Amino acid sequence: MTGKKHCLFIIFGATGDLAKRKLYPSLFRLYKKKELHKYFAVIGTARRPWTNDFYRQVVIESISGLVENEGQAAHFASHFYYQSHDVGDTEHYITLKKLGEKLKETYQTNDNQIFYLAMAPQFFGRIVSHLKSQHILTEKGFERLIIEKPFGSNLKTATALNKEITESFPEKDIFRIDHYLGKEMIQNISAVRFGNLVFEALWNKEYISNVQITFAESIGVENRTEYYENSGALRDMVQNHILQVISLLAMEAPKCFEEKEIRQEKVKALKAIRQYSEKEALKNFIPGQYIAGDFDGKHFLGYREESGVAESSTIETFVAGKFFIDNKRWWGVPFYVRTGKRLTEKGTRINIIFKKVPENLFNEQNNRIALPNVLTIYIQPTEGFSLLLNGKEVGKGFKLAPLKLQYRHDATVLSNSPEAYEKLILDVLNGERANFSQWDEVESSWELIDVIRSSWDKNLQEIPKYKVYTMGPYEAFELLEEDGCYWEWRPDEWYIQRGKL
Amino acid sequence: MTGKKHCLFIIFGATGDLAKRKLYPSLFRLYKKKELHKYFAVIGTARRPWTNDFYRQVVIESISGLVENEGQAAHFASHFYYQSHDVGDTEHYITLKKLGEKLKETYQTNDNQIFYLAMAPQFFGRIVSHLKSQHILTEKGFERLIIEKPFGSNLKTATALNKEITESFPEKDIFRIDHYLGKEMIQNISAVRFGNLVFEALWNKEYISNVQITFAESIGVENRTEYYENSGALRDMVQNHILQVISLLAMEAPKCFEEKEIRQEKVKALKAIRQYSEKEALKNFIPGQYIAGDFDGKHFLGYREESGVAESSTIETFVAGKFFIDNKRWWGVPFYVRTGKRLTEKGTRINIIFKKVPENLFNEQNNRIALPNVLTIYIQPTEGFSLLLNGKEVGKGFKLAPLKLQYRHDATVLSNSPEAYEKLILDVLNGERANFSQWDEVESSWELIDVIRSSWDKNLQEIPKYKVYTMGPYEAFELLEEDGCYWEWRPDEWYIQRGKL
Repeated sequence: MTGKKHCLFIIFGATGDLAKRKLYPSLFRLYKKKELHKYFAVIGTARRPWTNDFYRQVVIESISGLVENEGQAAHFASHFYYQSHDVGDTEHYITLKKLGEKLKETYQTNDNQIFYLAMAPQFFGRIVSHLKSQHILTEKGFERLIIEKPFGSNLKTATALNKEITESFPEKDIFRIDHYLGKEMIQNISAVRFGNLVFEALWNKEYISNVQITFAESIGVENRTEYYENSGALRDMVQNHILQVISLLAMEAPKCFEEKEIRQEKVKALKAIRQYSEKEALKNFIPGQYIAGDFDGKHFLGYREESGVAESSTIETFVAGKFFIDNKRWWGVPFYVRTGKRLTEKGTRINIIFKKVPENLFNEQNNRIALPNVLTIYIQPTEGFSLLLNGKEVGKGFKLAPLKLQYRHDATVLSNSPEAYEKLILDVLNGERANFSQWDEVESSWELIDVIRSSWDKNLQEIPKYKVYTMGPYEAFELLEEDGCYWEWRPDEWYIQRGKL
Repeated sequence: MTGKKHCLFIIFGATGDLAKRKLYPSLFRLYKKKELHKYFAVIGTARRPWTNDFYRQVVIESISGLVENEGQAAHFASHFYYQSHDVGDTEHYITLKKLGEKLKETYQTNDNQIFYLAMAPQFFGRIVSHLKSQHILTEKGFERLIIEKPFGSNLKTATALNKEITESFPEKDIFRIDHYLGKEMIQNISAVRFGNLVFEALWNKEYISNVQITFAESIGVENRTEYYENSGALRDMVQNHILQVISLLAMEAPKCFEEKEIRQEKVKALKAIRQYSEKEALKNFIPGQYIAGDFDGKHFLGYREESGVAESSTIETFVAGKFFIDNKRWWGVPFYVRTGKRLTEKGTRINIIFKKVPENLFNEQNNRIALPNVLTIYIQPTEGFSLLLNGKEVGKGFKLAPLKLQYRHDATVLSNSPEAYEKLILDVLNGERANFSQWDEVESSWELIDVIRSSWDKNLQEIPKYKVYTMGPYEAFELLEEDGCYWEWRPDEWYIQRGKL
C-alpha cells in the first residue's frame, strides 16, 4: 500500500509537548516524502485561545530543523487550522464539526478522518463519546483513533476506558501507540529471529539459558513528576514496552508476515506468561527508588527530593523482574527485565544468553572455560547486533578468549531512516495495525502487572534504594544470582564492588 | 610445558630461501621471548662453501627488522655454525658429527637434537639414513625431525619416503610441517566450532547446506616453475593444506583438547571422505590453467608462456572440486574446495553456508526471500570472522536486507602474535604434535588425490583455461550451479558476465 491518502487529522492536545516534538515533525517528513499530498488538513485543538496564524507559527518552529526553504514550511503549515476547545463543552464539538466540513471541501479529504488524542488519558472517554454524539463520526470515509499511553492505570480502569472508546470506534479503528513498536530495531526482532536459521533453530529452551531486557535511562524523573507519582516504572515501562518486546521475542512463527497472523501469535505468547500469585510476584519483582549522590563531579537529587514528589513517596523509579512463559518452547527459561531512571547509562538492549557448551571439552586450567554465547540486540541509542563468541586467544598454546562479532546501522542510513512516529502515522494512514497494541494485549498485560503492583502495595515496608548512576538496588542483582545468572550488560561494577569478580 | 629447552638444531638447506625468510626470524623471535635460552646452537649446512662469519652475517641480515640492538643480533648469531655439506658424501656426516659433539659441550644441549630438512624432498631419504648410519642419532636426548612439504608426490613415493625415514626416526619424532596448521585462524577453527553452542549445535547436515574452502593467490607461478611443473595445484595445495582444513572442519568433537584425541578425530574424518572412482573424480574435480590477459593496465603472461614451463604443459594452476564425507554428521553435504594462482584476489577463506529458513514465512514480493546464513572464517591476509544474517531493511515496511556481523583481529594484537613457523618450531621443542600431519593423514590424503590426478591424466584432452585475475574456469562455477549452489566469495563478476545476476 502506498500513502498519499486524502485525510483530515484532528489533533487533541495540539499545543502540547508531544505534538510539537513528534507529531508536526513526523507529518512534515511524510509531506516531504510525498506520503502526504495536497489532500490533507490538520485541525489542532486545545484549550488555549490561539489563532490559525499563531498555530502555524508554532508548527513552522517545530519543523525548523527539517525544512529546505521558507516557502515549503509555509505551504506545509497552511494546511493547519486551530480551534480552541474545551473537551467537556458540547458546543465546541459543533464548531469543530463545521470547521471539519469546510476543510473536507477545501482539501477533498474524502471523509477520511484521523483523531489523535495527544493528551492526558482522563479526557479520552469524554472526547470519544462527543465525537459520536455530535456526529463528527459520519462513517463515510475511514475514521481512525490514535491514542497515546497510558491506556488505563490497571485492568479495571483500562477495561472501563476501552468500553467507552469502543462505543464510538470499533477495535479495528483504534490505534494504541506504543512508540517502541515503531523503532527500527524492535521491528528487526522478527526479521532476525525468523529470517536466520542460525537463530531460528536455537530459539528455545534447549539452547537459550535466559533472556534479558534492559530499558535504562540516565535522566531522572524530570518534569513528569505528576504523572510519575501516579504511575511508576512498572506501569510506565513494563506494562507496555517491555511486555511488547517479550511477546515479539517469545512468539511462535506466524504463518506469514501479515498483521493478523503476527498479532495472533503475540497475544498467544503474552497469554502464556505465568500469572504470578502475590507471593510469587513479591519474590520475582523488585522495585527501586534512586537516592541522592555525586556522579562525574556533580550532585544529583534523590527521587524524594525532586520537586513535586512526596517526601515519603514509595513510587518506584526502577523495577527488575523475572517472567516465565509456560509453553513448550520456553518452559523454565527466565525472561529477566529491568528499567529505571538515573541508571549508569542510557540504553535499551536485549541480551539472549545461550547455554554453555559441555565443560569437559575444554580444560579450565589449560584452555579456560567457554563463556555462554550472547546475542545482543541494541535498540537505542546504538542500533545494531552483536554476538559474543569464544575463539582462540592469539598466541601460542590453545586458550579460549571471548570475541564479539558486531554490526551497527550505518549513521547515514540512520539519518535517512524514518522516526518511530513517522512510521506509525503512516501505518495509521494505511490502516496497518501490526505495530500497535490491541485490546487483548493491553488486557493481558494489566492482568500481569496488577498483581505485582498490589504485592508491593500490600507487603513492602520500605522500597529498596539505589544510588543515582548505578544499575539499581542490590536486590536486582540478587534476583539473577539466585538462578546462577548475572546481568550481561554492565554487571562488572556491581560484582567488583562486592568482591565477586 | 614451557620452552627454554636445551637443544642443537641442525638445518639442512641453511642457505636457502625458507631458512632465511622463516627459520632464522622465527628462531630469533623465540630467542627474544626467552623460549630459547643460552643452551641452544644451530648448525647450518648446505653445499655452498660458507664460513661461520659469513653465515652469521646472513643470519643477522635475515632478522634485521626484528632486532632491538646490534649486540643482541650478534649474540644471537654467535650460536650459529656453518658446515659445508654434500648430502651424499658420508665423510661429511662424520665432520658434522664432530661439530655437533663440540657444540653439545659448549652449549650443554643435553644431547637434544632437532634436524630440520629445509630442502628438496629427493634428498630426505639419503640424509635421514646417514644420520642413523653415521651415529649422529645417539638416542640419548630427544631427536626430532622436521620435514617440509611435499611428502612424496603420490601414495607410492610417499610410502617409500616414509619407509626410509621411519627406519631412522619413529613416527612420534617426525614433525611434518604444514605451515597452515600454525596459522592463528586455522587453529581457531576448533575453538569456534566447539567453544560456541550457536555453532556446535548447528554443525551438521541438518543445518549446513555446504562448506566452501578457497585458497586464492593473485601471484603467478613466480620462480617455482620447476617444482610446479611436477606438482600442480592439486598436489601443492589440496593434498595437504586443504584436506587438513577439511578434517578440522569435519571432525567429531575430541574427548578433550589434547593432541592425541584431536589427531585421532582428524584421521577419522579424513578416512570418511568419499574415495571417488576415476569417473567420479573426473566429474567432481576441475583443473584449470591461466592464460594471458590484461589487468589493471598491465599485461600478464599465461602459464605456458612463463619461463621454464613447457609450451604444451597440462599442469593445473587451479583446481576446484567437491568432496563428500560419508558419515552421519555430513552425509550429503558438499565440501567445495578451490585454489589457484593469478586469481582475482589473494585470500584464504572458509565459508559455512547454512540452510535457508522455510520460504513460506517471508513473501518474496513484499518481504524478499531470506539469504542463507554464512559464517566466514578469514584465514589470511585478513584474520577474523563474519556472520551473514538477514535483518529488516531500514525504513518503512518490512523488507529483509542482508547484514554482516564482523570481527577482525586487532592489528596490534596481530603484530605481537607469533608467526606460524615460530609457533611450530616451539611445538617441536615442546614435543607438541597436534599441529603437524601424521602419516595416517598423509596416506589417506594421497589415496584421495591420486585418483583425481590419474582421472585427469587419462581422460582430459585439454585443460580448462581461465584468464588471469578471474576466479578460475567456467567449469568451476558450473560445478556448484549443478547443485543449486554458488561460490559465496566473489561470485558476482562471473554471474554478471553471464547475465545470471
